[in-house]
Amino acid sequence: MRGFVIKNCDVFGLKGEQPEFRFGHDIWVDGNRIKAITPTNPGQEGPDVEQIDGAGMLAVPGMINTHAHVPMVLLRGAAEDVPLTEWFNDYIFPMESNLTPEDVYWGALLGIAEMIEAGITYVADHYFFMDQVAEVVQTSGMRANLAWAVFEHEGVEKLKETTHFITRWQGKANGRITTWLGPHSPYLCGPEFLHTCAHVAKDLDIGVHIHAAETQEQVDASLAQYQKTPIRLLLDAGILERPTILAHCLYPTDEDLQVIADHPAGVGQAPKTYLRAGMGLRDIEQYQARGIPLGLATDGAASSSTLDLYEQMRLMALTQKFIQADARKASLGEILRIAFLGGAEVCREPEVGKLEPGYLADIVLLRQDRAASMPRLNPAANLVYALGAADVDTVICDGQVLMRGRKLLTINKAEVKQEVERRLARLVQRVPGRKVAVYPT
Amino acid sequence: MRGFVIKNCDVFGLKGEQPEFRFGHDIWVDGNRIKAITPTNPGQEGPDVEQIDGAGMLAVPGMINTHAHVPMVLLRGAAEDVPLTEWFNDYIFPMESNLTPEDVYWGALLGIAEMIEAGITYVADHYFFMDQVAEVVQTSGMRANLAWAVFEHEGVEKLKETTHFITRWQGKANGRITTWLGPHSPYLCGPEFLHTCAHVAKDLDIGVHIHAAETQEQVDASLAQYQKTPIRLLLDAGILERPTILAHCLYPTDEDLQVIADHPAGVGQAPKTYLRAGMGLRDIEQYQARGIPLGLATDGAASSSTLDLYEQMRLMALTQKFIQADARKASLGEILRIAFLGGAEVCREPEVGKLEPGYLADIVLLRQDRAASMPRLNPAANLVYALGAADVDTVICDGQVLMRGRKLLTINKAEVKQEVERRLARLVQRVPGRKVAVYPT
Repeated sequence: MRGFVIKNCDVFGLKGEQPEFRFGHDIWVDGNRIKAITPTNPGQEGPDVEQIDGAGMLAVPGMINTHAHVPMVLLRGAAEDVPLTEWFNDYIFPMESNLTPEDVYWGALLGIAEMIEAGITYVADHYFFMDQVAEVVQTSGMRANLAWAVFEHEGVEKLKETTHFITRWQGKANGRITTWLGPHSPYLCGPEFLHTCAHVAKDLDIGVHIHAAETQEQVDASLAQYQKTPIRLLLDAGILERPTILAHCLYPTDEDLQVIADHPAGVGQAPKTYLRAGMGLRDIEQYQARGIPLGLATDGAASSSTLDLYEQMRLMALTQKFIQADARKASLGEILRIAFLGGAEVCREPEVGKLEPGYLADIVLLRQDRAASMPRLNPAANLVYALGAADVDTVICDGQVLMRGRKLLTINKAEVKQEVERRLARLVQRVPGRKVAVYPT
Repeated sequence: MRGFVIKNCDVFGLKGEQPEFRFGHDIWVDGNRIKAITPTNPGQEGPDVEQIDGAGMLAVPGMINTHAHVPMVLLRGAAEDVPLTEWFNDYIFPMESNLTPEDVYWGALLGIAEMIEAGITYVADHYFFMDQVAEVVQTSGMRANLAWAVFEHEGVEKLKETTHFITRWQGKANGRITTWLGPHSPYLCGPEFLHTCAHVAKDLDIGVHIHAAETQEQVDASLAQYQKTPIRLLLDAGILERPTILAHCLYPTDEDLQVIADHPAGVGQAPKTYLRAGMGLRDIEQYQARGIPLGLATDGAASSSTLDLYEQMRLMALTQKFIQADARKASLGEILRIAFLGGAEVCREPEVGKLEPGYLADIVLLRQDRAASMPRLNPAANLVYALGAADVDTVICDGQVLMRGRKLLTINKAEVKQEVERRLARLVQRVPGRKVAVYPT
């Protein structure tokens, strides 16, 4: 059984919504779990225990990415400064029609390399060719909830195929892989198809990861076509009986919010995407006040440029203060709670998101040696507003060290870079008439 | 005469508002200027020329910080989640009354260390005890425009003192130091005092750096008290006849904008501060359409947490798309133009902000080896939305290397950290009744 101790680091925690820092502590890891956190006592570990020097480092839980399309890092920068409809129909959907399983494999490697470098240890991913993504999750050492995205126009046969993926990978990689169903959205999957999805999810006893109520236009179109909001469609189809990740969900009605609160559903939000796409933002108190789990998401890099939850955390804090014109909103403790525990709640993973004995050993060490991290007058403020993905030094997931001194230990980045770059010219082709789906206008 | 060549880097430039990248080029530096930029030709430099290996790096101009309070890094994290009035009157103004010249010296060292680490080579600083700041600018190798902040309640005697600072330092440090006048703002300096400032600035043939029209409340209060907007007060006092940096200036009226456009004034903006303080934002097209110079600013770290213009650049782009609900706004080229050339225009420094022969050698090399920088499909998008301060590897200012491989060469950071930390407890004291000024409510 593996075991090691991280010596003499600062440990971030929360008491309710109050940030709490223990300075100069040791974190003891036994197998894939945290065994103890104790004040540093040099030499206490004895000569046989492996040590990681944490001096000067801040230990935080691995970040939890509640909604991503990881392999889209392949298309980073492919569609800039364009509105959402054009972004989908003229750039992304045509380009995605070029993807092969092997492309997705290399994209997943690059995206997971980026997430590990950014201190993310858990991702709820929603994409195509998910066997390839699962393979990379397995070999990279990350933790993931994987959903194979499916559109209604692909038919029930395709849905069935994705259930084979689910049974192949559920609980694999020492339990690091969870698999859910991934119908794309109520605007690209109608009520009947969603109803079938809900049945399948119930039979397999799994959850559903789906886009919903992303824009007001989507809500208006849904009302016009079905006389129901997207959330009401999900309710009536039975989807919300299942554990559900609602991606984005910026435009639920008050009634929708109550529906979500009454069901095992949570919301994953990626403010960077919403700003970039001009999609608008929602006051997060509306979710919080009803007890709806709320977590951070990166979305795909084609829309948010980076898979960086430190950036998303900071943007959520900044934009909430902005849209409410009140500096007191989105306090340090509230935003840190969303980033760590909120993510775990959205993904229904009660054993991650916290550095405490008994929790899974998903631990990140941040350097605090840039001048921007000094002085350490208010470590919670430094964590939210000054530190970032580039300060991540060491990443541990499930008790395994995935990065040390910024060097990735499970991914050959040079090889990934080369493989991705030689695919680019083909991937960004836009062949007239070819696209994976059509975003309705 | 010093000379060296940066070998085989990628060079960022702009053709109008079109980003332009030259891959695999050499940048030749002679003394404090760029001599040539040529396609890489290994060995061409001969054995006697010092080389900096730029392979894999992106060369950009040093960033230009158009408005800062550098030593406020001492108070990073001291006032979080509080509205502007409370922030000033209950936290910052009381704490600033504790500052000694020696505190400011160490604060300037920490702040300039942070800026160099973040690829900033020019700062327009506005603070107290500016002799200490000037000394640090001199020894650190940075370039700066320095203004000693003065309030009307300190009297004309104090203003005169600051002019002595100006004559002591104008043009010093091989011309790297420029000094301007720094009346705080029209809300803490009345019309007569401003009039005196304008006279003094004219006599000394220098510019003025001043806060103006930061909030709608300020504008309303000015109209109530003087029947004039803050910008009109500056005009009538003669300030705008001088080269002027207007800090923030979020709430000019249409008439004000025309006044600014008709004078040698520019605007420095720090979106991170505005978001955090819930101050609102302004559509930047309103400045751009009138040809008003617009640059990026960090403001002080007590309000923006970091002295990081990459972050401010990204926030400006994101928030402009957001407030106009249009992803086409604040295009890559437009935002990059503001970040580099816009900053130079605001500070009236025509020899910086561009990597071209004849320009001053203020050059920054960014690493492109994080997974977040891959692939290099759209280098302008990577620069705005994926790269950041933590990717800065090498910083050159006035032909001198200030940082190499992320190691600061002119500042002892460990010593600065220690000196700053031992001052903290005293600095954050709030002695009843003691504050440098009172923010009017």
